[in-house]
Amino acid sequence: MKALIFDVFGTVVDWRSGVAAVAAEYFAARGIDADPYAFATAWRAQYDPAMERIRAGNRGYVRLDVLHRENLDRVLAEFAIEKQFDEAGRADFNRAWEKLPPWPDSVPGLTALKNGYAIAPCSNGSIALMTWLARYGGLPWDAILGAEIAGNYKPNREVYLASATALGLHPGEVMMVAAHNSDLDAARKAGLKTAFFPRPAEHGPGQTSDLEATSDWDVVADNMHDLAARLGCA
Amino acid sequence: MKALIFDVFGTVVDWRSGVAAVAAEYFAARGIDADPYAFATAWRAQYDPAMERIRAGNRGYVRLDVLHRENLDRVLAEFAIEKQFDEAGRADFNRAWEKLPPWPDSVPGLTALKNGYAIAPCSNGSIALMTWLARYGGLPWDAILGAEIAGNYKPNREVYLASATALGLHPGEVMMVAAHNSDLDAARKAGLKTAFFPRPAEHGPGQTSDLEATSDWDVVADNMHDLAARLGCA
Repeated sequence: MKALIFDVFGTVVDWRSGVAAVAAEYFAARGIDADPYAFATAWRAQYDPAMERIRAGNRGYVRLDVLHRENLDRVLAEFAIEKQFDEAGRADFNRAWEKLPPWPDSVPGLTALKNGYAIAPCSNGSIALMTWLARYGGLPWDAILGAEIAGNYKPNREVYLASATALGLHPGEVMMVAAHNSDLDAARKAGLKTAFFPRPAEHGPGQTSDLEATSDWDVVADNMHDLAARLGCA
Repeated sequence: MKALIFDVFGTVVDWRSGVAAVAAEYFAARGIDADPYAFATAWRAQYDPAMERIRAGNRGYVRLDVLHRENLDRVLAEFAIEKQFDEAGRADFNRAWEKLPPWPDSVPGLTALKNGYAIAPCSNGSIALMTWLARYGGLPWDAILGAEIAGNYKPNREVYLASATALGLHPGEVMMVAAHNSDLDAARKAGLKTAFFPRPAEHGPGQTSDLEATSDWDVVADNMHDLAARLGCA
């Protein structure tokens, strides 16, 4: 095994808290009385349906930044606050996804793992989004892989395969790391090794999904530190 | 200006010394009496003609690793040492391009520049080659851009434009940094800002090319440290 590739939203960074923090700032500046966490959840709920049109071949590939921006229009309307955001305000708000805090173990864990393996995101985020997000949170990636280099979205197998190929590696030389069992299921079917740890706070209080491994992934860890330890990189 | 993108072979790393060091090891192990520096120069001489077929549209894009491997066959024959290298030996030898030492100012200079700007290679090397090279030398890139994401080779303008677009930036928000005037000429024509410093030892003793700036690039510096100072990142 020569490289580890990572799901990012939820696995490496806390998208819910990050988007809510930006939303709270915008709402306060505009005198909007809305729950920023509910807004973050509603915005994220548009994510998978938007990608599904592209995965299904009903739309050509566009970067996730474009989908996020389109989805923002819908969610602003859903919250009946679309009049408070002009075009420039929406473009700025869309950059909330570049300002997501890493979970506390992410940067030290990735830094340890980088001593033993090449590390890169295999996210549905664009190269730009992943790059600015890494600069925001200090994520020490060796390269930016994932959806954009494949021109498709996970869990389409091409995304995992293109990420391995871009490193000059066979799928079996690469391990996909995610806090989502479905992501690992697709990666395994594409021939990659798999590692899971839970992120029980990703969706906030009362999360019911992905609290534990639902298959015999190659590694099941407690968190990023534990993954590094199990791979001999602690 | 938000990002700096860099030529790598010659500008960031010393390809001639790096390839010669690997060649010297291989030659010693096989009792070959040949000049490893001459071999490095001969291998590199095949680089531009190989890319030119692709730039001219006479061949589809293949990664530079493939071109290096094809060129190696030619150079081994040229040196009449092709019988000493089997297929596995040639594949290993080809990875010489992943083991090139950074110039002494490259890592500290890039680290300083990274405090102010996103930094990424805009090289003709593949994502894999740039990733393993960065891990070998400790190059602190934020992302890997360049030929592979464009599916073409510099100085084709698409390579510069695709690199800016991949960061979500306009060409004028990106500065191309190179020790080669011709690279900067193409980048400027694509709308990027430009920075030059010389690498007078790139081609070894007696180098006559690119000893100084031949145009009024946006920044002309002495080296990577000086570039960081001139951009307020020292």
